[in-house]
Amino acid sequence: MSVAIIFGSKSFEHEISIVSAIAMKDIIKKDLIYIFIDKNKEFFQIPLTKIKSTLFSSGEYKKCERLDLMQGGFYKNSMFGKKNLEFEYLLNLVHGADGEDGTLASLFDFFNVPFVGPRVEASVLSNNKYFTKNYAKDCDVKTVECKHFKRGDTIVVDTYPVIIKPVRLGSSIGVSIVKEQSELAYAIDVAFEFDNEIIIEPFIENVKEYNLAGCKLKNEFIFSIIEEPQKDEFLDFDKKYLDFNRTSQVSSADLDTNLEFKLKQSFQKLYNHTFEGSLIRCDFFIIDDEIYLNEINSIPGSMANYLFEDFDNILNSLSQSLPPKKKINVTYDYVNKIQSAKGKV
Amino acid sequence: MSVAIIFGSKSFEHEISIVSAIAMKDIIKKDLIYIFIDKNKEFFQIPLTKIKSTLFSSGEYKKCERLDLMQGGFYKNSMFGKKNLEFEYLLNLVHGADGEDGTLASLFDFFNVPFVGPRVEASVLSNNKYFTKNYAKDCDVKTVECKHFKRGDTIVVDTYPVIIKPVRLGSSIGVSIVKEQSELAYAIDVAFEFDNEIIIEPFIENVKEYNLAGCKLKNEFIFSIIEEPQKDEFLDFDKKYLDFNRTSQVSSADLDTNLEFKLKQSFQKLYNHTFEGSLIRCDFFIIDDEIYLNEINSIPGSMANYLFEDFDNILNSLSQSLPPKKKINVTYDYVNKIQSAKGKV
Repeated sequence: MSVAIIFGSKSFEHEISIVSAIAMKDIIKKDLIYIFIDKNKEFFQIPLTKIKSTLFSSGEYKKCERLDLMQGGFYKNSMFGKKNLEFEYLLNLVHGADGEDGTLASLFDFFNVPFVGPRVEASVLSNNKYFTKNYAKDCDVKTVECKHFKRGDTIVVDTYPVIIKPVRLGSSIGVSIVKEQSELAYAIDVAFEFDNEIIIEPFIENVKEYNLAGCKLKNEFIFSIIEEPQKDEFLDFDKKYLDFNRTSQVSSADLDTNLEFKLKQSFQKLYNHTFEGSLIRCDFFIIDDEIYLNEINSIPGSMANYLFEDFDNILNSLSQSLPPKKKINVTYDYVNKIQSAKGKV
Repeated sequence: MSVAIIFGSKSFEHEISIVSAIAMKDIIKKDLIYIFIDKNKEFFQIPLTKIKSTLFSSGEYKKCERLDLMQGGFYKNSMFGKKNLEFEYLLNLVHGADGEDGTLASLFDFFNVPFVGPRVEASVLSNNKYFTKNYAKDCDVKTVECKHFKRGDTIVVDTYPVIIKPVRLGSSIGVSIVKEQSELAYAIDVAFEFDNEIIIEPFIENVKEYNLAGCKLKNEFIFSIIEEPQKDEFLDFDKKYLDFNRTSQVSSADLDTNLEFKLKQSFQKLYNHTFEGSLIRCDFFIIDDEIYLNEINSIPGSMANYLFEDFDNILNSLSQSLPPKKKINVTYDYVNKIQSAKGKV
């Protein structure tokens, strides 16, 4: 059976999603079905032979076959009516808006499409940097303390440098490091360009950062190697972009076993049970031997495949460990009771 | 123009949603289009003349016209292709699963259907009783302290009585009051029947409860009267059910003006800006003159119409104050830059 990969959609990370999706060609050893969501939120099936970035930038993808998402999956229109597009499961590779904010998770859940990716609650928690901090606290995992502001609030910063982030965007969009008062107002304006809420954190120079990806299979956790990402002050959008087509394995960070154990333990606390069904990458800071969560990437660039020795196999096992559907019985007990009291039944 | 009302879906509150929807017939003074979601998550248009509870319990609704939800709204299949179902906006009246957990909000957002109802983030926050408490704390509104447990955790209760609630269900389903140790294990089992997470709170006898509904229009808040709901120990499912077809106005609680002001102020803090686009009912406790949020009903039974003097007019204004779509430009700057560096453009 095939695996369907869904990518694109109306998001600041639209291009990045295309790059991630193309990277999967060399990584997943099954037949792939590519489903592109364009900026108008229409679905197109892209033949494997045609997939390259210029197909999308030129608008030529519009010549590809359109799909409808309806109860039971994606359908093509044929002369003999609608035909279901068959696949084993769908991999959600839409980074940012729609993909990581719970929208597509809701669609797949409602229309009964089995998928690998974060569910709606997990998406809302990891998509909002402020919620992530509260969630981590509940999971007993530290984060850097922040101040949370809504548009219109009075903002006072006492100590510099700080890092200013829109609450809801990924890939460093709208993020600024502010070293002194004179730069503050502009950086705040930039962040509010992208969101109605922002957070301001102390910016910690030369902080050690470690990335750990993983997922939970039926009865066990699978962890990637731990990577110490190379970075300048912080990753800008272009550099992050290049990160999304990585397919070659990287080497493990040089980390003492106790810290490695604690990183994995923190990952496990964050993952359980909210992130079931997804493969996530948690980016941690280590400050004075203490672990701090920086962010949860619920759909990491190119699925963080380069951190795993046998990504294909893990993805396959994950697709067989998807969370079960809620058991909900729809009954008409009450209506029937009323009707029978009225003597109508 | 008409108003579309969507109701039903696969939820423990399926029947309640039908009752709420039928109640709107007498309340909304526009042409109504009824869209029913059955337990298989298929859409049906129900003619106004046919709508009554037995149509659904008997399965006869299946003879009504099927609808497809696609980009731009709901469509009927006709001999001449697909025909868009025209309406001014859609009112989400699906209580519980799908309606209040963010699923339908995501669908309407993705497929570009203007709707009155909570957006995905608001839904996830108000649908999860534990998240609601954290959210209220961020908004500077008190809640009764609780303990949060996941399936498998060791649970110890020191002081009785307590109230045990599944984290994610509404309408008192799975909720128990436990007066002594001997009743604890059973009540915990009942709650875990419905969710993987539960909360346990002290049960405060004879607590004063006040319900306040409202919404934000473009530049002002509209508040309902404040009701002190009549109740026994707590509302059981049958009694709550009857609550959903209320259409006659109730009288205002006898409350001192200072407390009334504080209730409205708390409502405003909770509503801003997360609940924009929806009309919600906040249920508060007052303990020693202090206000505590009990829960946020993001789609209250029969839209809490009975708490407003001119519900129809308010709903109409709310439909004209829906939150704007996020402005997201999809560009291919990066692809073009790479292509031009390669000499391909």
